[in-house]
Amino acid sequence: MELDFSKLDGLIPAVIQDASSGRVLMVGFMNEDAWKKTLETGFATFHSRTRNKLWLKGESSGHRLVVKSIQTDCDLDTILVLVDAQGPGVCHAGYESCFYRTLTGGNWVESEKPTYDPNAVYGGKS
Amino acid sequence: MELDFSKLDGLIPAVIQDASSGRVLMVGFMNEDAWKKTLETGFATFHSRTRNKLWLKGESSGHRLVVKSIQTDCDLDTILVLVDAQGPGVCHAGYESCFYRTLTGGNWVESEKPTYDPNAVYGGKS
Repeated sequence: MELDFSKLDGLIPAVIQDASSGRVLMVGFMNEDAWKKTLETGFATFHSRTRNKLWLKGESSGHRLVVKSIQTDCDLDTILVLVDAQGPGVCHAGYESCFYRTLTGGNWVESEKPTYDPNAVYGGKS
Repeated sequence: MELDFSKLDGLIPAVIQDASSGRVLMVGFMNEDAWKKTLETGFATFHSRTRNKLWLKGESSGHRLVVKSIQTDCDLDTILVLVDAQGPGVCHAGYESCFYRTLTGGNWVESEKPTYDPNAVYGGKS
């Protein structure tokens, strides 16, 4: 039972969920290379769509995602990765989770505070 | 701040999470129509990639997803939908969650039991 990379131009969505809290931290995309790298290294690795390259999450920030368990769905075209997140936050904008905005009265409203200063970590780069 | 539907041919991934338990139940895709329908109706509605049409989750089974809260990510290209799931399971294969298989020793192993009989619900159709 191999994963099905055929539906999104060679990519599958990977939902990253905190293994302890159950919080959804981010969604990335993996191609077959990123998937193999994730299995080999034990760190969540994605295909960056904007940079078109393999992207070890945390390669700049040190905020790596240690894989604890992986599940797949009925169609084998999506994975759910339970992780221990190293560092204060997963989001390059400075938040614990990339999902830091909640739809409120028709607008996206910041619903939590940042957990670190992204400029200090990324030096102005995202 | 509008959602960005440009990256995946007009689609965004929508992660569906149980609002009570925190369990990730499924990942679907929404186009702009499905997004608007979700907001209008309060029931999670997707774009079916296989049938190429609007898909009210639960239209056959009655297992609808009542939207409780919606969050978006830093890039505005993914949403996290917290729901109350009506019925015994979200997955058309008969499970509470579509993520019913866990990577175990290099194989995808069923890690939980079905919660309903899909043949009784869908009459042989998925």
